[in-house]
Amino acid sequence: MAFGKIYLFPSLLSPCAPAEVLPQRNIALISSVTYFVVEELRTARRFLKACDRNINIDGLHFEVLNEHTQPKAVEAMLQPALEGHDIGVISEAGCPAVADPGADLVALAQRKGIEVVPLVGPSSILLALMASGFNGQSFAFIGYLPIEAAKRAAALKAMERDIKTRRQTQIFIETPYRNNRLVADLASALPGDMLLCVAADITAPSQSIITKPLSDWKKSTYDYAKRPAIFLLYNR
Amino acid sequence: MAFGKIYLFPSLLSPCAPAEVLPQRNIALISSVTYFVVEELRTARRFLKACDRNINIDGLHFEVLNEHTQPKAVEAMLQPALEGHDIGVISEAGCPAVADPGADLVALAQRKGIEVVPLVGPSSILLALMASGFNGQSFAFIGYLPIEAAKRAAALKAMERDIKTRRQTQIFIETPYRNNRLVADLASALPGDMLLCVAADITAPSQSIITKPLSDWKKSTYDYAKRPAIFLLYNR
Repeated sequence: MAFGKIYLFPSLLSPCAPAEVLPQRNIALISSVTYFVVEELRTARRFLKACDRNINIDGLHFEVLNEHTQPKAVEAMLQPALEGHDIGVISEAGCPAVADPGADLVALAQRKGIEVVPLVGPSSILLALMASGFNGQSFAFIGYLPIEAAKRAAALKAMERDIKTRRQTQIFIETPYRNNRLVADLASALPGDMLLCVAADITAPSQSIITKPLSDWKKSTYDYAKRPAIFLLYNR
Repeated sequence: MAFGKIYLFPSLLSPCAPAEVLPQRNIALISSVTYFVVEELRTARRFLKACDRNINIDGLHFEVLNEHTQPKAVEAMLQPALEGHDIGVISEAGCPAVADPGADLVALAQRKGIEVVPLVGPSSILLALMASGFNGQSFAFIGYLPIEAAKRAAALKAMERDIKTRRQTQIFIETPYRNNRLVADLASALPGDMLLCVAADITAPSQSIITKPLSDWKKSTYDYAKRPAIFLLYNR
């Protein structure tokens, strides 16, 4: 018997109709899958309903994979694929297995020779990079910066160096309530002619993606304290 | 008068129906735009026809932006937006302004305060990262590796170091006819337990995305010489 496949279904970054940000193929495929591995049960059910309001949620099998899941449990989640069933993976927001525990499931599937099929969907990293005007031929996503002052200063220095010597766009995130502080830190620690792009509320009606020099950010009024945002640095 | 917007329309990575890889929103929006900046005229026209076979191509305005375009010409391409018209940007394959000259147009639009709207579409970098099982919380895309032997060896050493010290997935590309040579180089220069993911023909029916240790690649038979591929390295 052939193995089932692992389909990686991107979900929504902000509330909108699935057809705004997902190809029709995803929506058709997701209705054909009955085994799911999801990061958050409530979000996943709501997303499935949004994709197909006639879906029979009670007929579906769900396993929850989050940062508390034991490695042994991850292995068991692949069992349906070994028995020929396709498995859909849905993370809490955006593309599964990029910055969530889905990567462990995918790694194990690869080791077992199960085919993994990634589907197209919204990625705040990629959408922000496109709209920033920065170098997309060389870029690094580094996740969260350290919070502790000395470590944060070192991380900013490392980014400045990678921009200068590698011509590498630096991409990072922050917890929303710390966003304003982050912009202020960047503006005070880095050269004024360095460019900062702040991409907030990506794919929402309130989306804003603004690139300007740190010297301009320093003089600007802004409030990103309640908006999910992603930050990019570069110097053209 | 309000400025027009710059819409970044991803195009296809391989021949398929647009609804396979693009949201319905993109297809509806693209039919409403009359000014386009495109990397390659023939590909862009074919893509527009695939999105909407009733489109009147002769009623559209096209400017070509490629690596030969002068900076002064790029500025002129934004004129319709300053006059209130939306502009669509289409690159030869995949997401505009990520690894093509569209980034110069976007940078200039950002400087002039013109809104830039990135749309969702297929990115071989992101799709490969999702399906690799590698670390998506920290990754770098470094474009092409150097060809010259000493420089290539240094680049491989730098990747090995960034994987070890930064836990950073390394992503890179090669010209297809050199793909097999690249896999052989990686397998002979780097530790056998390091994992290599080769993602070939992404979004095509022949798509294959395979992760295994370099020691396994060394013993495998493979032929990527005529297949567009993207490569990822990591050590879990």
